[in-house]
Amino acid sequence: MNVHIITVGDEILIGQVVDTNSAWMGQRLNLIGASIERIISIGDDHDTIVSTIQSSLREADAVLMTGGLGPTRDDITKKAIAGYFGVKMTFDQGTLERVEKVLARFNRPMTEQLKEQCYVPENAVLLHNKMGTAPGMWFEQDGAVLVSMPGVPYEMQYLMENEVLPRLKGRLNGKPIAHRTVLTSGEGESFIAARIEKFEADLPANVKLAYLPSLGQVRLRLTGRDADEDRLNRLLDDLQAQLVALIPDLVFGFGSNTLEAAVGELLLDRGLSLATAESCTGGYVAHLITSIPGSSRYFKGSVVAYANEVKQMRLGVKPATLAAHGAVSEETVREMAEGALDAIGVDVAVSISGIAGPDGGTPEKPVGTIWMAVADKKRTEAVKILAGRDRARNIDYAAVRALDFLRRFLAGHYPLPGKSL
Amino acid sequence: MNVHIITVGDEILIGQVVDTNSAWMGQRLNLIGASIERIISIGDDHDTIVSTIQSSLREADAVLMTGGLGPTRDDITKKAIAGYFGVKMTFDQGTLERVEKVLARFNRPMTEQLKEQCYVPENAVLLHNKMGTAPGMWFEQDGAVLVSMPGVPYEMQYLMENEVLPRLKGRLNGKPIAHRTVLTSGEGESFIAARIEKFEADLPANVKLAYLPSLGQVRLRLTGRDADEDRLNRLLDDLQAQLVALIPDLVFGFGSNTLEAAVGELLLDRGLSLATAESCTGGYVAHLITSIPGSSRYFKGSVVAYANEVKQMRLGVKPATLAAHGAVSEETVREMAEGALDAIGVDVAVSISGIAGPDGGTPEKPVGTIWMAVADKKRTEAVKILAGRDRARNIDYAAVRALDFLRRFLAGHYPLPGKSL
Repeated sequence: MNVHIITVGDEILIGQVVDTNSAWMGQRLNLIGASIERIISIGDDHDTIVSTIQSSLREADAVLMTGGLGPTRDDITKKAIAGYFGVKMTFDQGTLERVEKVLARFNRPMTEQLKEQCYVPENAVLLHNKMGTAPGMWFEQDGAVLVSMPGVPYEMQYLMENEVLPRLKGRLNGKPIAHRTVLTSGEGESFIAARIEKFEADLPANVKLAYLPSLGQVRLRLTGRDADEDRLNRLLDDLQAQLVALIPDLVFGFGSNTLEAAVGELLLDRGLSLATAESCTGGYVAHLITSIPGSSRYFKGSVVAYANEVKQMRLGVKPATLAAHGAVSEETVREMAEGALDAIGVDVAVSISGIAGPDGGTPEKPVGTIWMAVADKKRTEAVKILAGRDRARNIDYAAVRALDFLRRFLAGHYPLPGKSL
Repeated sequence: MNVHIITVGDEILIGQVVDTNSAWMGQRLNLIGASIERIISIGDDHDTIVSTIQSSLREADAVLMTGGLGPTRDDITKKAIAGYFGVKMTFDQGTLERVEKVLARFNRPMTEQLKEQCYVPENAVLLHNKMGTAPGMWFEQDGAVLVSMPGVPYEMQYLMENEVLPRLKGRLNGKPIAHRTVLTSGEGESFIAARIEKFEADLPANVKLAYLPSLGQVRLRLTGRDADEDRLNRLLDDLQAQLVALIPDLVFGFGSNTLEAAVGELLLDRGLSLATAESCTGGYVAHLITSIPGSSRYFKGSVVAYANEVKQMRLGVKPATLAAHGAVSEETVREMAEGALDAIGVDVAVSISGIAGPDGGTPEKPVGTIWMAVADKKRTEAVKILAGRDRARNIDYAAVRALDFLRRFLAGHYPLPGKSL
């Protein structure tokens, strides 16, 4: 199935908003085995919309449009679609009732603009939009499909998940497709590839493995096709288990989990509380941890010790340690982590001190040199990493690696990464 | 001038990366007065690239392409362009010399793939890419322009700023265009519009005002056109000064400055040091502040007091205060900010405590209730804001509003926002 995505909106063309809808849709379509051939962004212009629909429906089996359906804009997409098909607009009583319900809940009056939303091209099959007032619309012509959805991301996502993807799946000719995603952190693509070389070479012909790297993390996605869906799911479950068994120390979760959520689950599991002691990351590790709902069950707090006197005063780092080894050193991060155990009153603490840049590097400790430690009441482990030269990237990378180090410490995955990684 | 942007790469179609290049290019092109008509993303496929170039060059005055020029991919864009023009590839000695220099710096060997990069379509005008090994390429045909750039954002941006935009500007027929952007924080669009209503109504016909809102901030952009560039710049400088005079309390900077950088400049100016005491924002305010290079000159550290016992132990919040008013209250944030002055040893401290959600709300204090305070050694000011129901957005919004509150406190912009904002 060849798909075109068309996003409508002047604000996309002038770069006022980044079009994230297309990437989200592309991901989901790819997962069901559809092939995205083209993504097109155009402005809020009737004739342009009509001609773009025309040329896309000539080339694609399905054309998915977003944008131009809001109540404050001119519903330009809807009228252009009616124009393309040469049909009239018709008033939909069901949409009116839903709009009235939403208004009643927020105690707001009906407006002319909102009434406009209830007019739809007469050949539209309406897709119920639980997240907003404008319905999605499904059209068919000569075996091809045209779908129009609002541009608001969570409305589009709701419609895709609940209405559009299930219908498109039913029209796919190929064999059923299924996926398993294994999430890893702390090692790069080539390192992982070396460890799973034989597994990858021995994969059955109907299963492919994709490496999806991001900063400090690699997602491993197994994609299989088989006419027999049960057999396919058994096969993928089995392969996933084999894969995990090869790299148990690297795997932190599955599907769409995050490293910060996985660390939280480990802490909850073990009934442990956590603190961070941060220098170069400036509170970013604490921010990632507290981005998870319910993190107050295990996270108690942090000392962000940017200045050396705060490291001394609040974390008990010895002046002699700072004088002898500097703030970016194994000795300092050990004392920071151990100090945070007492300062915040927790079971486990992670500390980070490094040179984020752009300035502050020396020949012995260049920009990107980052030390981190994890301590509990029995032991402290420390590790050095070397990041790059970009400040923002170094902070991100240090935070991901600190979470990974904490994860390994908690999960007991030894050997912990060497000191000269 | 009508422009099409074409981004090439399978990874965009399957949503593995979000195409941020197009938005960046759209912004810059819009600023010079070019009109972006279409953004098209296609895969790494020779025939698709050729036919897309063909149809875009038929409709647009300039077609800007990114992607498909890297050394590890097949340079597919370059070959497709040569195919489209029906020209041969030719070896460019200058590119070879630059690649060799880069390799020498990193002590790496020349590879066949890198040598491939030195072949370019023989009708290309090469654009020197200081940021990478693949040069940009400029083509002309029947008065229209085709430009090809690498997809790596900082390489594309370098080429746009230094090579492409200056050349395109020279081809624009319209009058010179210029901009002034005034940055505001802490008030919404409609509030600002009410305060500058007369200014906006009285703008000369050749100047437009655009409101560009983001979370907790609004950028006000004046765009003018005039055949006489000096006169235009004097006019815009004058209008910008008038605008600032109408809303001096809201303006934190100009152009592409950030709120966190502006706060840093205020602190440096006044020779003051800063700490944060954070509960619901979990270190995010400290992270924003330390994202600015050189922030160690004014930022000393934070106490992230997620748990109430940390608020007591490390910030000196009284147990009686927490018992009587709760953690999310004016009394608590005042004690947190005042406590942070001593705990970190600074001149000014900002504190935040709120209910980020999704759980933890009550009828009196619903999710989104956020208290914040700023203290120096003489006084403490506190304010309550009401955010929404989405956890991530609430944390972002609370952080922006805390930075804004701190800015107003430092700049002496009174009255400070009321307690029931």
